[in-house]
Amino acid sequence: MSGEAAYCDWVAVDWGTTRLRAWAMRGGSVAAEAVSDKGMNSLEKNEFEAALLQAVEPWLGQGRMRVFASGMVGARQGWAEAPYRAVPCPPLAGPGIAVETADPRLHVTILPGLKQAAPADVMRGEETQIAGYLYQNQGFDGVACLPGTHSKWAEVSAGEVVSFRTFMTGELYDFLAHASVLRHSVGEGWDAAAFEIALSDTLSRPESLGAKLFGIRAEGLLDGLPPAAATARLSGLLIGAELAAARPYWLGRDVVVIGAETVSARYIEALENQGVSAAYANSDEMTRAGLMRASEAFREAAE
Amino acid sequence: MSGEAAYCDWVAVDWGTTRLRAWAMRGGSVAAEAVSDKGMNSLEKNEFEAALLQAVEPWLGQGRMRVFASGMVGARQGWAEAPYRAVPCPPLAGPGIAVETADPRLHVTILPGLKQAAPADVMRGEETQIAGYLYQNQGFDGVACLPGTHSKWAEVSAGEVVSFRTFMTGELYDFLAHASVLRHSVGEGWDAAAFEIALSDTLSRPESLGAKLFGIRAEGLLDGLPPAAATARLSGLLIGAELAAARPYWLGRDVVVIGAETVSARYIEALENQGVSAAYANSDEMTRAGLMRASEAFREAAE
Repeated sequence: MSGEAAYCDWVAVDWGTTRLRAWAMRGGSVAAEAVSDKGMNSLEKNEFEAALLQAVEPWLGQGRMRVFASGMVGARQGWAEAPYRAVPCPPLAGPGIAVETADPRLHVTILPGLKQAAPADVMRGEETQIAGYLYQNQGFDGVACLPGTHSKWAEVSAGEVVSFRTFMTGELYDFLAHASVLRHSVGEGWDAAAFEIALSDTLSRPESLGAKLFGIRAEGLLDGLPPAAATARLSGLLIGAELAAARPYWLGRDVVVIGAETVSARYIEALENQGVSAAYANSDEMTRAGLMRASEAFREAAE
Repeated sequence: MSGEAAYCDWVAVDWGTTRLRAWAMRGGSVAAEAVSDKGMNSLEKNEFEAALLQAVEPWLGQGRMRVFASGMVGARQGWAEAPYRAVPCPPLAGPGIAVETADPRLHVTILPGLKQAAPADVMRGEETQIAGYLYQNQGFDGVACLPGTHSKWAEVSAGEVVSFRTFMTGELYDFLAHASVLRHSVGEGWDAAAFEIALSDTLSRPESLGAKLFGIRAEGLLDGLPPAAATARLSGLLIGAELAAARPYWLGRDVVVIGAETVSARYIEALENQGVSAAYANSDEMTRAGLMRASEAFREAAE
C-alpha cells in the first residue's frame, strides 16, 4: 500500500524480513503511513529502491527526501550491508550507512545493528527502538525486553547497550500454534488462568517444556481442553521458559517492555507475577523515535 | 509403491500420519514390502481401503488375507477409531478392532493406542513396538525410549506399560532445521564434538535452550560456524533438553532405544555419556514383531 499524499520533512522506515513500514514524518509527528509486504526476504538487491519508492512516492517533492531505515534492510542479504557495531556501545552512533539510489529525490540512510562476541548474538532494528526509548527517557538504566519473532533482552546502562540475548520464542510460538500437531488443539480466545499456571510451570521447571507442549495435544484429545485454554497455555509455557532463561536480566531490575501491545501485556503480566514492575513502550513509536534521533544526529553532523 | 508379488500368510501395516508401510509376512519373515505416502493426514475415511489395496493387492490370493495395522490409522480421524486403552496395561491385549471392508479378500484389524490420564498423554503405534520388544525379550523390565517426531519414554514392568511421556523433539528439530531462521545455518555433515558439547549444555541447564538455539544463527553470521557443527549442535541441544526432562525415566535404569538407526545412535550416545548403557532395537522390526504377536493372539482367540 502506498502512503497517502502528505507533506513531510523526513521519512522513517522499519524494514524487516517480511514487511516494510514507512512513516511520513513532520518532526516527531506522523503525517502518513505506508505498509507493504516487500520485506528483505522477498527482494533482490536491485529491487529495494523500487519497493521503497512504491511506498513513499506520494510524499516526495522537488528536493531530496531524507529517509532513515533500520532492520534487516541493512543485513548482508539486504539492500546494503550496514555492518554490526559491537556491544558495549550506544544503540545508535553516527548517521548510519548512506545508500546510492538511482532516483535523485531519495537520500537513504540505513542504521547498523548490534553484535555481541560471546555469547554470539545479533540484533537489527531493536537497537533503534532502544535508542528511541533512551531518547525519550534520558538516563534510563535497566533492562529492555523486546518481545517478538526473536525476543531480545538487553542490559542498558550509561546510554549504552551492555549485553543482550535473543530467544526464538515468537518463531516457536507461530510454528507450534499454526503448523505443528498442536494446531489441532489451539484456537480462538484466551484463558487467563491457564496462562498463569503454564507460566509458573516452566518458570520453575523450564526443563518440562518439551513434555508440557505435547500435553496440550493430549489434553485436547482426552479431556477436551478448550482452544482458548490451549492457546493461553502454549503462550504461557514459552514465555515462562524464556523468563526462566532470562532471569539474570530481569531479577531485581527496572524493566521496560518494548513491543506490540498484546504480546507486551503478556510479558508485563508475567514479570509482575514475579514481583518485577515493568514499564511499557510501543515498538512502532520507539522505532520512529530512534530514527528521529538518527535524523538529528545526521543534521548535527552536517552542520 | 505397490509391493512385488509374493506369497504370504499375513500382512503387517505401520500406518502413520504421513506414510503407510506394509510388509507381506511369512510367519515372522518379510517376503515383500510396500511403501506409500497415503498417510492418515491425506485420506478421507472412505479412501483408506483403496490406499491399502493399492499397496497390498499383489499379495492377495483366493482367500481372506489377515491384515494387522497400527498407528494413526486407528485415530478418530483415521480409518476406524480404535479407542485408546488406559495405562497401566499390557501394550497389546486382544485382537484389536475389526474394520469392515468392501473387498472380501481383506480382513483388517487395527490395534488401539494407549492413553494416560495424568499427566495426559497418548501414543499410537509405539505400543506395538514395545509389544514387539517384549515378545522378543520376555521378562524385560525397564524403560523404552522411542525417538521420533514425537519421542516417547515408557516405563515397562511385569509385561505392562506403567507410565509414559511424549516430547515433541523430532517435530521441533524438523521445523528448526528446515523452516526456521536456523535453516540458513544448518546443513550437511555431522560434528561429533559439537553434538556432545550441546548435549551437555542443555542437560545441565535445560532453561538455556531458547537462547542457545538463536546462538546457532548468530555464530553462523559472526563466526562462520560450519553447517555440520550447526546441525550437530541443534540436535544436541534438543536431545539434551529432552534427556533433562526425562531424567526420572532413565536415571539408573535399563534402557532400550527403539527407533530408526541414525537418531537412535544419537540417543544411545547421549545416554552412555550419562553412564547409562542402552540396548538398541530397530523400530520397523519391533512393529512387525508386535503385529505378529497380535496375529497370534487373534489365532489363539479364534481357536
